[in-house]
This record gives sequence, C-alpha cells and structure tokens, in this order.
Amino acid sequence: MKSTTCNNLLVSVVADVGGTNTRIALIKDSKIQPDTVKHYANDNFISFDQLLESYLKAEKIDRCAAACIAIASAINGDSATLTNRDWLIDKNAIKRIAACDSVILINDFEALALSLNHIPESDTIRLFEGTASSINTSQAKKIVLGAGTGFNAAQLSNTTHSTIKQPTPEQYNYFVSCAECGHITLPIENAQELKLRDALALKYTRASVERVLSGRGLLQLYQWLCAENQQTEKYTSAAQIALSACNKDDPLTRQAGELFCRFFARVAGDLALAYLPYGGIYLSGGVTRGLTPLLQSSEFIQNFTAKGRQTELMKSFNLYLITSDNTALIGCLAALTYAKEIH
Amino acid sequence: MKSTTCNNLLVSVVADVGGTNTRIALIKDSKIQPDTVKHYANDNFISFDQLLESYLKAEKIDRCAAACIAIASAINGDSATLTNRDWLIDKNAIKRIAACDSVILINDFEALALSLNHIPESDTIRLFEGTASSINTSQAKKIVLGAGTGFNAAQLSNTTHSTIKQPTPEQYNYFVSCAECGHITLPIENAQELKLRDALALKYTRASVERVLSGRGLLQLYQWLCAENQQTEKYTSAAQIALSACNKDDPLTRQAGELFCRFFARVAGDLALAYLPYGGIYLSGGVTRGLTPLLQSSEFIQNFTAKGRQTELMKSFNLYLITSDNTALIGCLAALTYAKEIH
Repeated sequence: MKSTTCNNLLVSVVADVGGTNTRIALIKDSKIQPDTVKHYANDNFISFDQLLESYLKAEKIDRCAAACIAIASAINGDSATLTNRDWLIDKNAIKRIAACDSVILINDFEALALSLNHIPESDTIRLFEGTASSINTSQAKKIVLGAGTGFNAAQLSNTTHSTIKQPTPEQYNYFVSCAECGHITLPIENAQELKLRDALALKYTRASVERVLSGRGLLQLYQWLCAENQQTEKYTSAAQIALSACNKDDPLTRQAGELFCRFFARVAGDLALAYLPYGGIYLSGGVTRGLTPLLQSSEFIQNFTAKGRQTELMKSFNLYLITSDNTALIGCLAALTYAKEIH
Repeated sequence: MKSTTCNNLLVSVVADVGGTNTRIALIKDSKIQPDTVKHYANDNFISFDQLLESYLKAEKIDRCAAACIAIASAINGDSATLTNRDWLIDKNAIKRIAACDSVILINDFEALALSLNHIPESDTIRLFEGTASSINTSQAKKIVLGAGTGFNAAQLSNTTHSTIKQPTPEQYNYFVSCAECGHITLPIENAQELKLRDALALKYTRASVERVLSGRGLLQLYQWLCAENQQTEKYTSAAQIALSACNKDDPLTRQAGELFCRFFARVAGDLALAYLPYGGIYLSGGVTRGLTPLLQSSEFIQNFTAKGRQTELMKSFNLYLITSDNTALIGCLAALTYAKEIH
C-alpha cells in the first residue's frame, strides 16, 4: 500500500547500522517517511546486504535515488567493517542492491552530529537550561555524547572566519569533527574511584572512559560494587541494571547507576571545556536513555557544573537528552541533503 | 633608521599581550619585520595604551593600516581586560593611538591556532614523527596546547563539507575553535598522583589540569615533592626549577619536571583523542620550552601514546614543540590577512 507510490527515483534509503541493531527508513520529499522506519536485530541476517535487500523488497522499492548508511565503525574509503560483527559494508554492493549511483558511508557519530540542527524538539528532554539559551545559539557549536556499546563524542561546528568578524548566514558551513573520546583517561577524584580504576585496569590493562560509560561499563560497575559489598550478583545485563536503578529496587544497582551518572557528568563537563558547545550538549545512546530519571536529578547537573572557577561558564550550556533511537537516520538525511547542495 | 621608510599606510602593528610580557612587531608587505620585534615587561608600563604609544613612537610610526592584538583573556566585544593584570585593552583607544580604522582583538590561543599553518619550520622541534606524516596533512586539523601562566588548547580546522565529499582547496575555510582546557579534571592514575591531587584540591578546592600544567603548577609540584620528602625548598620559581630539572642537578626538581611531563603527555594524549588532530599537535608556552630536554625523551612519547587499544592511532600524530616566543604575532598577521580576504 504505502510503498508502491514511492517506487520511483524520488525515494532514498537511510540506515544506521549498530553493533546489535540496524535502523532503516525511506526518504521522500526530503523527509523520513515514519511508516517506513524499521528496526532489525542484526543476528537475524548474515550480512547488511541481505538486510538491505530484504527491507527494500518488503517496502516494494526496486530503485533508489541515493543511499546514506551510518556505521558504528571507521569508514575506510568505499567500505567499512563493523567493529563488533564481521559485516563488510561496501558502497558498490549498496549501489547494486539499491540500484542507485550515489551512496554515502558515514560514521554513526558523524551522523548523530549532522542530525543536531534537525532533531525535532519532541525527540529531546532538556536536562538543564543554560544561560546561553538567551543568546542566538542556532549557529553555535553543538556536541553529541553517546554511551551505548562504547562511548564517543562528535562536534558540529558552524564555520567561517567567524572568529574574526560576524559572518552572514550563507557564509556558514556545517562541519562535523569526529573523536575517539571513549579512550580518554577515566577521570577519577577520590580513593573509592581509584579502587574502581585499579580493578578496571587489572582486567583491561588500562581504565578508559568507556570502561565505565557503556553498556558493558554499567555491568562492570555493578559487578565491582557486588564484589566490594560481598553480595551475589542478581543482574546480568546493563538493561536490567538500568531498569532496577531507575525503579530503586536494589541498593547496588542504584549505586551503579549513580556512579555511572557521576562519571558521565564529569566527562561531559570536561568535554564541554574542550569544545565550548554554546549551541548545546546532546546526550545519546541506549544506556543513557535507560538511566533517564537519574540524569534528570539535580546531582547530575551539580556534577556537570562542578568545575571550580568555571562553574558559571558551565551553567551557560544547554544539556539535552536525545530520547529517540532514530536520530542517526536524521543525520543520514542531512548528509544526503548537504551532498546534493554542494554538487 | 629602519622605521622612517615604514612610515606610511602599508605598516600594521601586531601585539601579543600576556600576563607578564608583551611581544609587539610591525607588519610590512604581509611580513613581520624582524628588526621591529620587541619584548616588554608589562610591569614597566601603566597600561597597554602607554606601551603601544611608546613602541610606535620608538619605531617612528604615526599611522598604521591596521592592528591586531592577541590578549591572554576572553574578548568581550570591543574590549578585553587582562586576566591577571588590571589592563583594559580597548579597540577605540588602539584606533586613536595607532591612527587606524581596523583593529582586531583576539584571544591569545586563537592567535596561536591561527599561526599553525604559517610557523616556519625553524621555529619548531619535532618531538615525534607520526605515521600521518606520509599522508597530506597540510589541510588536516591542527591543535596547539600551551602551558604558561595557565593551560589551554585551541583547534585549527580546515573546514567544508569535507566529511561528505572531497572538497577543492578553495572550499576550505580556516576555522579556530577555542577551549577552556585548563579547567578539565586533572587525570590521575595511581595512589601517588591521588595524593598530589588531594593536596592541590585542599589548597584550591579542586584539582584541575592547570594546577599542574602551568608555571605555578611546576612550582606546586616541586613544593609538594619537597614536603613529601621532608626536604627544604631550594628554588622559588618555575624557571629555576625547570633549569635545574634540565641540568639534572637536584633529584626533586628532576622529579617535579618528570611529573609535569608525565601529566602533560597524558593530557596531550587525551586531547588528541578528543580532537583527532591529524595535521599535528603543537606544544607551546614558556614552561613547556623550559623543559625541552625532558619533552624530547622517549618517556614523554611513551606516556603520550599509552592509550591501550588506541596506541597505534596515537602513533599517527605528529608532535611539535614551538621554540619561538613570537608565534602569536604570526597568528595576528594571519588574522589581519584573513580579515582582508573576506572584506
């Protein structure tokens, strides 16, 4: 019903391929078509090619205008291999399957950053209203931080020679800058945190940010707290721990959730000092969303702004939580639009 | 002798106003005139206006084409107040003194970042040759990190929609992004460092990066080591401590210098992960230069690249030490040139 009308060159396909799940949708009239958005467990497919082929068949699309695929991995020219699954995603294969000439492969954080100028307000919760809200922040730098399978960040800058004189709107370029923030030194501040750090370093050689700020990190925190308190582990997944922490039905899951949020606030604050994102800080990722009530606490904001003489500066930043799981698809659409503009 | 020939509208003035010293020079034919470069101790003047007036008089310049002043402080529209000296630097006063219409005020780290595409090779020492040297890095992102009166960093990006397709050279914009990296959490990794962190936090409420990575920070490290080792302090300034550390004539100054460099390497590595500066990392600042032989040691590089699974990535970055104290003046010249281009 819905898709036969789309079966022409005005339809493009966008996908966000994570380690566990893939989100995929069709674009028509420069909009994501809500009824075409699908989530798939990667385990049900032998390859991304098979997934894409099966999706397009189900949507009755035999030809696309273009495709943009966001991938949780580094892009090597015309292809990318998923970090924690042996899927090779290749431009030429996609061109063949989607019968299109134009294929863009981007990193998933690049896609998230590209989405930041376009996320509907209903897809975010404002965690903190910064004093920068009163000035025009639409063209100021934005960053996205995500805790999911791993941890990372990306900057969306609106660039020109803007540091020198006031640029006109048409002089702006949207520019994404990627990072490897998950591997930054885990910032600890007291003896208990040093003990945690040492336990993580014993297991993984080194304690980086994503050893705590990820799904596996939340599980590690909980297991460490159980060992420290000589308690038996009751939960085996980050999702269960997050749910229990939010329901306040177990003191150790609660402590794990609170410790996670303390580190998240501290790291987000440190990255705010490194990037100065006066346009806003967006928190994303599955684990992040799972801990929403804890992120909405005054303690989170207090830990975020606790930067000594820079506390007032910290209060200037808007903090948002991205509640949707489809944001990278919006970024893929933005990438297709920008690519068309500069052709 | 030298300046009478400059006494026309083709001469511009550039200055770099730090907390302690001011560097100032004249520009002619888009070049800094080496014999006009002067360093002044701010203590000898009651204001920047007096310093500028006195300099221009000595150089026999009664009129400039333009002025660009880099200031160790945030710029508030048309003026700036030095962070650690009650000097107000105001555009209108400079216009009057230099008899010019065009005055640019920029932050000193903005000036340093703007200089990065223009520093002569003779003004740098390569501390590490990264594997990224083999690819074209001239248009890749560069960062500058500086330890002096305080600590900070800035990014110089070459921007376009470059994440999407290969841009042509004329599509590039040079874009500087500022930061407040001195206030990031001091990254500690062991019990000795936690003890230092606690001592700094006791004194300053909080232990941020610049409590160690600055002139005063090096003095703090030395004083803390003296107290820990129940030794009398023999040195009272960062310059003395750095000199003694380089001469290896005192075990405690040596330890202070090594601890400083260990933190510098760790912080530089963390910021490299946040910024991914494939175009190079430039270390700047007075304290930094004072510890040159320690920064040239293999231990410094080892600490810089010690990021677990990302060690190979870390080895891709070029690391340079800026040996000149006049680099911000080159950035001021770049700012004047860019401003002219977009007029």
